[in-house]
This record gives sequence, C-alpha cells and structure tokens, in this order.
Amino acid sequence: MKLQARWIALAAIAAHAAGCSPLQEPPARAPTPRSVAVDDALVQFSLVAALAAGDYVAGPTLGEVLTQGDFGVGTFSRLAGEMIVLEGAIYQAHVDGTIHRVSLDDTTPFAAVKFFTEDGRIEGLAAPSLDVLDRRLDEQLARRNVPYAIRIDGEFAALTLRSVAAQSPPFKPLVDVVKQQVTWSHQNVRGTLVGLRCPPWVGTLNVAGYHWHFLSDDRQIGGHVLACELSRGTLRYDECSSLVLHLPRSREFDEFDAGLIDKGQIDQIERQRVPAAPR
Amino acid sequence: MKLQARWIALAAIAAHAAGCSPLQEPPARAPTPRSVAVDDALVQFSLVAALAAGDYVAGPTLGEVLTQGDFGVGTFSRLAGEMIVLEGAIYQAHVDGTIHRVSLDDTTPFAAVKFFTEDGRIEGLAAPSLDVLDRRLDEQLARRNVPYAIRIDGEFAALTLRSVAAQSPPFKPLVDVVKQQVTWSHQNVRGTLVGLRCPPWVGTLNVAGYHWHFLSDDRQIGGHVLACELSRGTLRYDECSSLVLHLPRSREFDEFDAGLIDKGQIDQIERQRVPAAPR
Repeated sequence: MKLQARWIALAAIAAHAAGCSPLQEPPARAPTPRSVAVDDALVQFSLVAALAAGDYVAGPTLGEVLTQGDFGVGTFSRLAGEMIVLEGAIYQAHVDGTIHRVSLDDTTPFAAVKFFTEDGRIEGLAAPSLDVLDRRLDEQLARRNVPYAIRIDGEFAALTLRSVAAQSPPFKPLVDVVKQQVTWSHQNVRGTLVGLRCPPWVGTLNVAGYHWHFLSDDRQIGGHVLACELSRGTLRYDECSSLVLHLPRSREFDEFDAGLIDKGQIDQIERQRVPAAPR
Repeated sequence: MKLQARWIALAAIAAHAAGCSPLQEPPARAPTPRSVAVDDALVQFSLVAALAAGDYVAGPTLGEVLTQGDFGVGTFSRLAGEMIVLEGAIYQAHVDGTIHRVSLDDTTPFAAVKFFTEDGRIEGLAAPSLDVLDRRLDEQLARRNVPYAIRIDGEFAALTLRSVAAQSPPFKPLVDVVKQQVTWSHQNVRGTLVGLRCPPWVGTLNVAGYHWHFLSDDRQIGGHVLACELSRGTLRYDECSSLVLHLPRSREFDEFDAGLIDKGQIDQIERQRVPAAPR
C-alpha cells in the first residue's frame, strides 16, 4: 500500500514536472491505498479518555501492538496489570508485582508504543524523586509540543510501584479502579524506566506530561511508577514527529462521552505521586 | 519499513507459536523500523490550534500531502486561499473566488486528508441550509467518536463561500484574519462538497464537527462553505479507523501555547454560518 501511495506521489510529481496542471482531470490512478506510511510515530491504541470511561475490553492483539512499536506502556484486557513494552517484548506486571508471560493473542484496551530510535542521551542522571526527575527533564527536553519516548537505565535506590487487579463487568470508571490499586516498594534495584511525555495539547487523549512504568533488569519486578529515587542512570530520548491514534471498532468506544472526562481525572489516574518509601 | 514491521510481527508470532516466552531475551532483531503502516487514516499535518495561534508558514510540500490522502481540506503557506483536495488533485481557491493551479513544491501549514474509500452512501439528499444538512448527517452517520470524510456531489441552488488573502508577517491570529475574509455567493452550481466531521474528542487539534469546502464541477468556483442550499445530491462517506497527526519541525510549532486557543475560537474560524443569499 505504501508503494501505491509513493507511486501516486511520484506520478503527481512527474505530471507536475511535465508542465501538466492539477486543474486538469487527474490521470487514471492506481487503486486507492488502504494504508499510509507514517514516520517516527508515537502510536496509541484507543484514547486514555475512552479507557477512563470504562472501555476495558475491546482492542487489538498484543501481536498487532508490536507491529507499531517496540517500546511503551499500556494495560491489558480487563485492566489485568500494567504493560511494559521494552526491546520488542511485552511484560505484564500483575497486581502482586510479579511479571508474567503474555500471549500475543491477548488483547489490550489501551497501549502507546514507539519504535525507539535514540535522538539523544543524558549520562550520569540522578534524581531524589519523580517530581525532581520530571522537572529536570522539562528543562532538558525542550520541545514541549512533541511527544517524547524516554528510557532511563540505571540503579534505583527506592521505587514505589502499583498495579491493579483484573476487573469484571459491570466495569467501574478507572478513577474508582485505581482507588483499589495495590502498591509495593523496593530498594536498590537495577532496571529501566519506560516513559512517555505527551504535550499539553493531547488533553485527555493520552497522559499530558510524564507517564512512567518500570521493569527490573532481571525481569522480576515491574509496574506503574508512583515514586522513585534514581541513584544514577543513563537517559535516552526519542522525539516523535507524529502521533497515531488507532480507534477501536466497538460499541463501548462509539458510546463513550469525552466531555465527561477531564484532565484532573487523568492526572489522578496516571500521574499520582507518593512520597518515596523510607529506607 | 512496513515490511520490516510485518517481519517483526511475524517473527514474534512464530516465536509465540513455538512456545517461546516473551519473558526471555528477545531474539536478534531486524533494524528498528522508522515508519509504521496505518490503515484507513484521516491524516492531518499540524494542528488547527497551532494554525489558529499564527503558525502559517512551516509545513510539508503538497506532494508530501498527496502521499497521505486524495481527499480533504486545508490551507496554503501564508494562508493563501482555501485548499480543496479531490480525487488526488489539489485546488487553491484564492481570495477572489477563482481556482488556481498549485505547484506540488508549495507548502501547507495545515491540511487534513484521507484516501477516500466509500463505506456507504445516501442518495437523493437535499437540505435547505448547512445547519439542516449537519443535523441530518448527525442522525445518519452514527459513530460519533470516529472521524468521517464526506463527499456530496450534487446541484446547489445557493452557495456562500469564503477565502482569505495571503498574510504577511508579523502574522495576526487566525481569528482576526477571518474578520477580513472575502465572501461571495453563487446560484445553481453543480459541484462537490468536500467535508470532514471530527469527533468531539479532537478538541482544538482539528475542527470538532463539520468542516465543508466546495469545488464546482467545472473547477471554476470553490472555497470554504459558509452557507449552502443543496437541491439534490449523492453523499458518500468514509468512516476513519485512525487519526494521524504529523507535527511540524519548526520554532513556531515548538512555541505555540495550546492553552490559549479554545473550541469557541475554532468554531468562529471554521464553523461560521451565514444566512443563505437571497435568490
């Protein structure tokens, strides 16, 4: 399909070069492409606002997610844990904090992924808290209106993580589900923060600001990050030049009312902060 | 790139079928794809909010736009007229209402296009005004949370169109530019309404609701539609299953403040209605 799109573009350019006017009837064309090629994209499946409204079941398979990125965050069908996508593998952090195997036939109601290509790095990064980390990155990752995928590999003196249990219908809104989140803390763990920073203009389509998940080097510990103390690490970032929104084909998605979800609720769900656990 | 993405997906599925666990280290992988294939997408270049803030110059060439769609609406560098994209050709409606040739090397600060594939049609459609047309389509195009590309070919008893003149720096905000818009009216014209309907959740990223441009069958008349009386026409619609946002690489885009633009301003700019001209 991409080749067809290119063909049409080349044909148009050739017609132009030959002095033909676009005002004339266009020439006979190749079949209409069904897909387009999008460079350097943060790709999300569904909208955080739809997830927050309780649309926890429809969605693509994890195999489909991996065709659109190798790095990112998300959740699983019925909110069964936190998703970490790292180096092309998907990890599921259950509500007890353990990491489980996934089947690529499982589905997800929300995920945001990127084929991670490093645009730059910061060595020797340290931060006593998540808030300080966020503020430092606000200073150093300057393009506030494009999304960033952010990877930090390092040594963490303290981490507080959370996950949520799989839900059963009738589903509660996400803001109520996270009131039953389970949290746990670890000290002195080596691992990776898998993060996204979305621009203010995403509103409630995704999480405006920073959204961090974690996976330990030994793949034994992971979850959504509520607090962390980074002793020392290397940050790699990938500035995204496009955003792709895949929209579910489901009754739940068709019926959700974006007007009922505000940015404050999304922050409460995805940008909670807790004090670091005492060590 | 698309083939590489597919290859990775197939490799992942094969690994899964062979009983391998995603918890193991991923196998040696093909180079990270730079692009992804996105099906059935409404593709927009920049954001209406950025355009409304006065970002009128940066952007892709018209040749690049045509690689992502053959149907849609937009504007040109420095707001030099209204853009109509129809059947793979781009038409420029100048401020005097005449249709001009474009060079595919020209650029656009905002365009939204789709490879139009008909998902359904309504024959024998008539509407005494644009507001009535919009309300009828609200009833008939039921999926309120996905974008629609909408094409209406027919006989128009009356049309009021507008365009704006090319701007010079320092640029005024768009809401002030449209105060100097030029409008004109026509009776009994055959042609095509080229329209988009975006869901409420787009906020100020695009135009939530209907956005109509027009091009006559003889390619002599066109512009942004402020009023129309449709005597009889055929509507074809294309439900979009994804939305792609290409983000400009420019200082203006990096610096625009999405918080300063509200939905009311976008409506004033793009969803103005005037009474139909008397006949």
